[in-house]
Amino acid sequence: MTATLTAFADSPDQGRGLARDMRVRWALEEVGVPYEVRLVPLNGLRTPEHLARQPFGQIPALEDGALQFFESGAIVLHIAQSYPGLLSEDAEARAQDLSWIFAAVSTIEPVVVELETARFTEGDRPWIRERLELIAARIRKRLAQLSDCIGQSGWIGDQFSAADLLMVNVLQRLAGSPLLEEQSNLASYVQRACERSAYQRAFAAQLRDYQATAGAQR
Amino acid sequence: MTATLTAFADSPDQGRGLARDMRVRWALEEVGVPYEVRLVPLNGLRTPEHLARQPFGQIPALEDGALQFFESGAIVLHIAQSYPGLLSEDAEARAQDLSWIFAAVSTIEPVVVELETARFTEGDRPWIRERLELIAARIRKRLAQLSDCIGQSGWIGDQFSAADLLMVNVLQRLAGSPLLEEQSNLASYVQRACERSAYQRAFAAQLRDYQATAGAQR
Repeated sequence: MTATLTAFADSPDQGRGLARDMRVRWALEEVGVPYEVRLVPLNGLRTPEHLARQPFGQIPALEDGALQFFESGAIVLHIAQSYPGLLSEDAEARAQDLSWIFAAVSTIEPVVVELETARFTEGDRPWIRERLELIAARIRKRLAQLSDCIGQSGWIGDQFSAADLLMVNVLQRLAGSPLLEEQSNLASYVQRACERSAYQRAFAAQLRDYQATAGAQR
Repeated sequence: MTATLTAFADSPDQGRGLARDMRVRWALEEVGVPYEVRLVPLNGLRTPEHLARQPFGQIPALEDGALQFFESGAIVLHIAQSYPGLLSEDAEARAQDLSWIFAAVSTIEPVVVELETARFTEGDRPWIRERLELIAARIRKRLAQLSDCIGQSGWIGDQFSAADLLMVNVLQRLAGSPLLEEQSNLASYVQRACERSAYQRAFAAQLRDYQATAGAQR
């Protein structure tokens, strides 16, 4: 794989690991594939050049030689299907890995992201407090179900997989929130995943890119 | 493939094709694989037996022999990767198909579903009108971007794929809404997809299952 990752030059989270290129960096570190980075500033997301890579003006995108991917779920799945380490070898376990990859990005992530969307777009509306309570209830329901599946010390399957990687990066958006702390096994699950050396390397690389851009702008 | 689909016995949409088992039925019809159906009533979604198949108490789930899948995106991708017809043969086009499969279920679907969620959970709140306007603005933005990609007469790629199947079923939730009609090429795109014979067979099968349950309950 010749991997070129399109990532934020100036991540809105200031390098805290929440920008979705983190998932791709992490997956590439897990399988040991080096990558180039193309940094796009926030004001570059609507250019024709970027929209050709990411039609919705988001990040990340990945080029693997002539293959072009967007959507972090698709990119992580492509990496996992290209190299050993992020999907089970066993066919039955692999079917569950695939199911959980989609659960992370289409069942858990939308309710978690709604919390940020509401704060951002409705933060000054008179109903914001009640809205956040409604969203918290939706998140609580999903996290309780997820908590039952994760158990006390393991991963979604028998071993760490691309599904854990995506799920953990989604749950990190709730870091420090009582919603996550209420499910202590999920808080430990996130912590355990972030102690992996591949995560640490990915986090450091994302932060380094952010700081280089921030430094250049000062 | 020995396919057993877990679907709603009494779909909340009364057989109009919006329950997510429709996507799986449609994909199986496109590739010509017969399937058995296990119907679960709404009050059966929290049973241990169902949660073992679908940890979040949703539908659909699919068993393919010993392989168990949940999440409509994962199931449709599995079907598309198992049989010819729903993914491009060309590797570059296939990379885009995979990206668009995730775009359907994790970029477009969440903003569309939020409209229903708000009507259902906030319909009696004093802010509902303003909330629906905020959601409509989010949907408009995404549909305008999608409209640019679909063009006038085609599919997402050169041929109908699993990505179109999922995207169309997401857009169907907006059937009759000005949000969809405003982008006339998207309205035609949905109509064109629903004219496919595989869609027609899947729709008829879902409606038949719904009517059989409704008849038995009278």
